[in-house]
Amino acid sequence: GVLRNLRLLMNTGTLAGTGKFVILPVDQGFEHGPARSFAPNPPGYDPGYHPALAVEAGCNGYAAPLGFIEQVAHKYAGELPLILKVNNSDSLGGPDAPCSALTSAVDDALRLGCAGIGYTIYPGSGLRNQMFQDLRDLIREARAVGLPTIVWSYPRGAGLSKEGETAIDVVAYAAQIACQLGAHVVKVKPPSEVVFQEAAKKSYENIPIGTLMQLLREIAAAGQETDRRAGRLHLRRVHRPLQRDHRRGADRRPQLRARVAAEAGRDQRDPERVRGRPGPGQEGALG
Amino acid sequence: GVLRNLRLLMNTGTLAGTGKFVILPVDQGFEHGPARSFAPNPPGYDPGYHPALAVEAGCNGYAAPLGFIEQVAHKYAGELPLILKVNNSDSLGGPDAPCSALTSAVDDALRLGCAGIGYTIYPGSGLRNQMFQDLRDLIREARAVGLPTIVWSYPRGAGLSKEGETAIDVVAYAAQIACQLGAHVVKVKPPSEVVFQEAAKKSYENIPIGTLMQLLREIAAAGQETDRRAGRLHLRRVHRPLQRDHRRGADRRPQLRARVAAEAGRDQRDPERVRGRPGPGQEGALG
Amino acid sequence: GVLRNLRLLMNTGTLAGTGKFVILPVDQGFEHGPARSFAPNPPGYDPGYHPALAVEAGCNGYAAPLGFIEQVAHKYAGELPLILKVNNSDSLGGPDAPCSALTSAVDDALRLGCAGIGYTIYPGSGLRNQMFQDLRDLIREARAVGLPTIVWSYPRGAGLSKEGETAIDVVAYAAQIACQLGAHVVKVKPPSEVVFQEAAKKSYENIPIGTLMQLLREIAAAGQETDRRAGRLHLRRVHRPLQRDHRRGADRRPQLRARVAAEAGRDQRDPERVRGRPGPGQEGALG
Amino acid sequence: GVLRNLRLLMNTGTLAGTGKFVILPVDQGFEHGPARSFAPNPPGYDPGYHPALAVEAGCNGYAAPLGFIEQVAHKYAGELPLILKVNNSDSLGGPDAPCSALTSAVDDALRLGCAGIGYTIYPGSGLRNQMFQDLRDLIREARAVGLPTIVWSYPRGAGLSKEGETAIDVVAYAAQIACQLGAHVVKVKPPSEVVFQEAAKKSYENIPIGTLMQLLREIAAAGQETDRRAGRLHLRRVHRPLQRDHRRGADRRPQLRARVAAEAGRDQRDPERVRGRPGPGQEGALG
Amino acid sequence: GVLRNLRLLMNTGTLAGTGKFVILPVDQGFEHGPARSFAPNPPGYDPGYHPALAVEAGCNGYAAPLGFIEQVAHKYAGELPLILKVNNSDSLGGPDAPCSALTSAVDDALRLGCAGIGYTIYPGSGLRNQMFQDLRDLIREARAVGLPTIVWSYPRGAGLSKEGETAIDVVAYAAQIACQLGAHVVKVKPPSEVVFQEAAKKSYENIPIGTLMQLLREIAAAGQETDRRAGRLHLRRVHRPLQRDHRRGADRRPQLRARVAAEAGRDQRDPERVRGRPGPGQEGALG
Repeated sequence: GVLRNLRLLMNTGTLAGTGKFVILPVDQGFEHGPARSFAPNPPGYDPGYHPALAVEAGCNGYAAPLGFIEQVAHKYAGELPLILKVNNSDSLGGPDAPCSALTSAVDDALRLGCAGIGYTIYPGSGLRNQMFQDLRDLIREARAVGLPTIVWSYPRGAGLSKEGETAIDVVAYAAQIACQLGAHVVKVKPPSEVVFQEAAKKSYENIPIGTLMQLLREIAAAGQETDRRAGRLHLRRVHRPLQRDHRRGADRRPQLRARVAAEAGRDQRDPERVRGRPGPGQEGALG
Repeated sequence: GVLRNLRLLMNTGTLAGTGKFVILPVDQGFEHGPARSFAPNPPGYDPGYHPALAVEAGCNGYAAPLGFIEQVAHKYAGELPLILKVNNSDSLGGPDAPCSALTSAVDDALRLGCAGIGYTIYPGSGLRNQMFQDLRDLIREARAVGLPTIVWSYPRGAGLSKEGETAIDVVAYAAQIACQLGAHVVKVKPPSEVVFQEAAKKSYENIPIGTLMQLLREIAAAGQETDRRAGRLHLRRVHRPLQRDHRRGADRRPQLRARVAAEAGRDQRDPERVRGRPGPGQEGALG
Repeated sequence: GVLRNLRLLMNTGTLAGTGKFVILPVDQGFEHGPARSFAPNPPGYDPGYHPALAVEAGCNGYAAPLGFIEQVAHKYAGELPLILKVNNSDSLGGPDAPCSALTSAVDDALRLGCAGIGYTIYPGSGLRNQMFQDLRDLIREARAVGLPTIVWSYPRGAGLSKEGETAIDVVAYAAQIACQLGAHVVKVKPPSEVVFQEAAKKSYENIPIGTLMQLLREIAAAGQETDRRAGRLHLRRVHRPLQRDHRRGADRRPQLRARVAAEAGRDQRDPERVRGRPGPGQEGALG
Repeated sequence: GVLRNLRLLMNTGTLAGTGKFVILPVDQGFEHGPARSFAPNPPGYDPGYHPALAVEAGCNGYAAPLGFIEQVAHKYAGELPLILKVNNSDSLGGPDAPCSALTSAVDDALRLGCAGIGYTIYPGSGLRNQMFQDLRDLIREARAVGLPTIVWSYPRGAGLSKEGETAIDVVAYAAQIACQLGAHVVKVKPPSEVVFQEAAKKSYENIPIGTLMQLLREIAAAGQETDRRAGRLHLRRVHRPLQRDHRRGADRRPQLRARVAAEAGRDQRDPERVRGRPGPGQEGALG
Repeated sequence: GVLRNLRLLMNTGTLAGTGKFVILPVDQGFEHGPARSFAPNPPGYDPGYHPALAVEAGCNGYAAPLGFIEQVAHKYAGELPLILKVNNSDSLGGPDAPCSALTSAVDDALRLGCAGIGYTIYPGSGLRNQMFQDLRDLIREARAVGLPTIVWSYPRGAGLSKEGETAIDVVAYAAQIACQLGAHVVKVKPPSEVVFQEAAKKSYENIPIGTLMQLLREIAAAGQETDRRAGRLHLRRVHRPLQRDHRRGADRRPQLRARVAAEAGRDQRDPERVRGRPGPGQEGALG
């Protein structure tokens, strides 16, 4: 079930067997509107464009909302792991506190041959409880039919400044929350060197956070994902590499390939970093 | 199931086989009150008046709330595709943020022999999540019994001015959202040349939006509807041609016929426009 | 099922076979308190008093909340059509926007041998959606066990003045809404000659609303009730003739009988008015 | 079912067969805190103390929250009718409008061998609808497994002054509401001679409310309880005689016995008062 | 079922058979963030670190959120009683009134071989009703599959000062509430000598609360836990001894062992205190 689909994700594309992910998510049409997302590169209006790109660039999978997945599932199910993003937000307006709407369901993912579902939480939101509880129910429902859950954990809310949303302590906290909620794979934003929470400042005094490498190591230690049988902890990272490229209006396929390759290369140089910080006596890979 | 009813809709009336829709929706009595809607043309008070008009004018189908459909289903089910509008709003008052009430259900549509259900969303509303989630559940429930879902997507909410509601970027966004939510057919309002969202202005700089033809082409590119088996993308348009006529108090049957005919004529002149912008390698008609 | 119980209602009492209703509803104890309702005529404290009065006066049925119906169902079920009022409000306090509480259920009506259920909506309320949706569910649940639904449709809310609540355009609108929601029988308040909604004023310019007869004719055109098989439209009116009498502290049984008789007499003088305004080709009676 | 358990309640203790109740409710620990409730008489901390007292004093039954009932059910089920109080409030804080929390359920009552459930409503609260609807569901669920429902009906809310909460018109109204909701037994607070609602003042002009006897007679007329088969109306009164005694820190067992005895004696002097005001032709006792 | 798992908890570790608990809960990563919780003692980042510590120190069990339990269940289920903490809060932001989010479920506990579930309530919160009702449902669901429920009862809300949250009257009240809700084991914070509620001050005048011993005795009297068959009342205490130690950044294993031992020693010196204040005729231990 879940493990089989996780293995499928991990054994697909250029990074197969490395324990790392580069998943291509395309929900910009929903989140930011079609023109902002696709006008600079009109082929992006076509739902078939993105999974083809994911295959060509050697990604582990492709994540999108229901409409896009329904367009391509008949072609890619079984070939490219598809992740159904089951909640989404738009930028036209919504509830007072950040909270995406549920837009599809586990049985849609099952019907469309997906390898998992995706869900976004906004730790820090006044609607936190609703999101966490919906996620709780979705994870259990998805597990029951063999689907892992990928969580996008983006802190956002009245108590967080724009800078705070990507502060190292807040991003690490977001990874921790998603892992404790039972996420199988977690995506966080690249953290800055800022420490936002007053109460956390002392804790970070002796942690070197001067480089991205070190930042990611810290995140990897905080965010842990469960493989009950293998007893390993991983922080999976889900990239969204094409978003900015699309906005610039160019076809950046070579760049995506390059990024995947770079990720593969880094893994060989620094295996511990991408595998998280395993506890004592917890060695061995998941795949 | 769903495809059979979609084909039924597409193969009914003057536009049969063209891949286009002119559906006659009559929910003005609920939305604006009976006198404003029907007093100028008193035969409109009669629930039987409207489906007869739809047949006579060669429409693809007829959409109305439960009360009206219950009046005519025994006569038109199997003859004219009926769409049960399952949510409705009135103009006497309601919740603080725009949100129609659920007024009937999928099993009503099934019981009354309808060819589909209809649902209105208001992207931009503070109650967005509730509407999207209700729609999510309705689409799945309707699909399970073979009924397609037609979505009216009308942006409305605290962050949108009256002008913004029909701005080209907002209308295109509304089509995108409805399609991503899994709608089989989408109705948007005719867009103006205004670009409302500051962040979208740059994206529209190089898109020609000077004529309605071009506006519709842009919408067609943004809003896509799924036919998983045929692999085609369509933007279906649902007209409400009689609303203004009713208010003027005259019998405009000839006009409705003329409009259907005009739509048929335009299709032959510009087939690509009405079929949306198909992706690479995605040719051929749905019917 | 539903039709059988509707026929039972229509074929009971002095008005049997006329297509009109005089139903005696007694929920004043809940809505206004026991002393205000019953102290002037103490026998009214007795739950058995009211159905006896309904029988004696030749009413079509008797409607009341659960407590009262439970007291008398063993005696009157099968003799006098009983309507279980499944929502109620009191005047001690409640939610910010008008909304009655659900106080009993369809299976109570079934258990007690009732011929239908009753439900009050307040179009214009900020809680409109909750009421419409609850009614939607109740109508379907009641239909499934063969019970028709009688809707009291009383506009009320922040956007309506006291005068507006009984304005002819607002009352006609309320009838339209209840009918579109699928009510089998609708009760509205007697409308005044006022036109409340600015947007409706022009529509009423050419409609004669100077007399109660004309007002009711307009309402009958707006509010329509479904008999799918017979193809007829009716506006059923549910009288509450005793309410004011009770407050005056006298036994007005002769008056109630007179009112029922008058209603019977009017029917013979002006059959079209009480049957609503049938559409073209829709003649014949329901019974 | 329900009637059997009602009979059990009515045929237990000193008042067996009189049609009256003295039920000992002990929820003060939850409602006011343990020290305020039990410190003056420390044996009251012991959950076993109270049902023993109820038996010794000849009460009809014992009502308490889940924790207390779970402690004693194994000993008293079948000997002393136990009432599970399924909602409770505390005085540390809660929702803006008065509303107790659901704290146990019908199946707990069934599991623990109880003879009924208890529920508190606060007519006048902004959360009235939630309480009435929860009660509606609980009564039906309890009836389905043969358990009667005892309702504590205490008006409370933004529109009621402290004095208004016990005004004769408000208390009579509270009894009416509970009875209409289907309660089998109703507890109200002893009313004062105040008439609170402006609109009710005229109704009370000719009702003698100068003595407690007369007050209770008025309440008995307003609040009626259903015994469908016997056709009798009763207002059951549930005493909470020990609450104040506990606060005074003394063992008042003799007092409780005296009160039960007094109640038994009053019944013989004025049978009509305790049986409510039966309607015409409704004589005979329930037991 | 429940009793078997309670016995398992009570018969594990150094305190086996004493009727007391030292359970090690580690939810600081969720509640306070990973760096604040684990950076001072980096092995704590490892989910495997904590249950190993619990075993080594002779604790009765280990409680943690889903993510941590999923990491270690395959190793510790059947060896160390695991408690799944099914609700959690973080310090990034949340609802206006204190209320943890549901983060896992009873069937997760069952799937992972846990010996019970844990739940936190905040008496005094404006969202009290939601928490109490969720707990009500969880306790029943857990009991149905044989799992006891451990409740953390921490008063918190608009009406409580920081000092009030640990006042003796408030802490005793919190224990009372959790026990009345049906908790099998209750954790409260060590109370101060402050009496917070004005209305409770008089009640505490004659209770000696000068020493922690006396404070705990008072709490034990207020908070009672049910063993229906044995008829005994217990206040179980759940320690969180390592929290502060972690923050200090040191490995305090010896301290934990010492604390467990001390608890064992105290039991022998003052058995009545740790067993609560049994009611008359209620002797004998649960195990």
